[in-house]
Amino acid sequence: MDDALEMEILKITEKLDQNKFVELNEYLEDMHSADIVEIIMELEEENRKKLISVLSWDKISDVFEEVETPVFISLLSAFTKDQKRMILEEMGQDDVVDLIASLDDDKQKELLSLLNREEASELKELLVYDEDTAGGIMTKDYITVKKDITVYQAIEEVRVQASEAETVYYVYVVDHMQRLVGVLSLRELIVTKANKIVEEIMKEQVIQVNVGTDQEEVARMVAKYNLIAIPVVENNGIIKGIITVDDIIDVIEEEATEDIYKFAGTTEGEYKIEDSFQKRIGASVSSRLPWLIVTVF
Amino acid sequence: MDDALEMEILKITEKLDQNKFVELNEYLEDMHSADIVEIIMELEEENRKKLISVLSWDKISDVFEEVETPVFISLLSAFTKDQKRMILEEMGQDDVVDLIASLDDDKQKELLSLLNREEASELKELLVYDEDTAGGIMTKDYITVKKDITVYQAIEEVRVQASEAETVYYVYVVDHMQRLVGVLSLRELIVTKANKIVEEIMKEQVIQVNVGTDQEEVARMVAKYNLIAIPVVENNGIIKGIITVDDIIDVIEEEATEDIYKFAGTTEGEYKIEDSFQKRIGASVSSRLPWLIVTVF
Repeated sequence: MDDALEMEILKITEKLDQNKFVELNEYLEDMHSADIVEIIMELEEENRKKLISVLSWDKISDVFEEVETPVFISLLSAFTKDQKRMILEEMGQDDVVDLIASLDDDKQKELLSLLNREEASELKELLVYDEDTAGGIMTKDYITVKKDITVYQAIEEVRVQASEAETVYYVYVVDHMQRLVGVLSLRELIVTKANKIVEEIMKEQVIQVNVGTDQEEVARMVAKYNLIAIPVVENNGIIKGIITVDDIIDVIEEEATEDIYKFAGTTEGEYKIEDSFQKRIGASVSSRLPWLIVTVF
Repeated sequence: MDDALEMEILKITEKLDQNKFVELNEYLEDMHSADIVEIIMELEEENRKKLISVLSWDKISDVFEEVETPVFISLLSAFTKDQKRMILEEMGQDDVVDLIASLDDDKQKELLSLLNREEASELKELLVYDEDTAGGIMTKDYITVKKDITVYQAIEEVRVQASEAETVYYVYVVDHMQRLVGVLSLRELIVTKANKIVEEIMKEQVIQVNVGTDQEEVARMVAKYNLIAIPVVENNGIIKGIITVDDIIDVIEEEATEDIYKFAGTTEGEYKIEDSFQKRIGASVSSRLPWLIVTVF
């Protein structure tokens, strides 16, 4: 653990022990959720629950997107049914799927029963895909527009759909069958005359992957074409989801770790150096940074 | 080489041999520059020069951003002085710096002499930094606004500065000394009322790195905070550049490769498996995909 993180934890534990909740709330609201996650992973369960209870709903859902499954389950138990629903609805869909996929059947059903019918059925649809494929890591929170609207209308669509979308920087153009027929970046949209028609300026050759494409191939394509997101389609050309570059970085790290274990001729469970290394830098950090694991050898 | 690539190369070589330049131009304009680079890397020098001569200027600069240095030098020699200048000016600044940094002093001077004074002095400034640091991989093509303008004016600034910028998705807010005082995403800008003042809605705690920060630490931060770009400042807080996530993926791949060599207890030059592997999948592909190198073991 680095010194700055250790200092933060001391400071926050002190406030927690003295029940200074207002002060703590102000302090944490200025902090990035990724830093809060790092701190939570180092706290005892009791203090974790105290800390999460003082956060705003926005921060809570961000934090829940990044903690590991056992911590997620334990923290979620501190909330009422309505609060749980709120948290799950605020979270990114791809993160909720990842979490639910790692639970047993009973826990899965319990969480799915919290959600409204539409969200639950979207999640069930996503749970069908193998977790190492494009379908398994995609989200259904993307922006689509019809091809015959103007640039002005398309930007309005971005505004309307923004709050739900995983990224607003690509707008996917679909026909009446929801088949992917083009793509426009927000960059192109805002530098183009407002009365142009989407179909005239969209890129028709959309770089895309299939729901069954292996996640390593998806990563290769995002890296090669310098994309912020890549759309995922079924064989019939209908768009089913998107994968954003931040998740691609997670894939690269995951694959690198797997590859290292292969290289070392062992499996994750057996590997001793990993254990001690995890203790040294904290499980949450190492799980996000497998490419660094190698540098300790 | 995969079958699809091999087919493309056959098709293109045929057109090149028959000097079907108009047809070739139409064919290549529909192709992504990253695919054209893959093809170029497989052609003989004569055909490379023929192929590049039929591309549009836009495509040429995109292609030049991604080829390896020796190919860059050889291809560039096919153009006149004015054409060379045009290509260098169209290319992303970080890519030009990478290329120039790998040349000897005479070649460096020759290329710098082609550029206008402002661009040349920016490049010289960037060449000072160690290539493994934030300063060494950043670009100076970013968008800044003053803190007292409206959201409407800020979006107008994005439109004006877009053609030069490496990304338009973050707008950096600076004071009269060019010190970084805030950041706004284009996402936030387009969902906010047009008459709001930038200072009121900007995020004041900007996640940033120093020009001297090691590139591995930069990658760790971009991954941790899920950023599309990260600003680079000097000790006095003045913004000097940005690094975009596509370059961060390159860093992760580069560091992973280095780490693998360390793990194997050898250096790049000595490592035999690497040599044969490079031949197998083509140098251009392997240089972009070191994390895949490991899977062949």
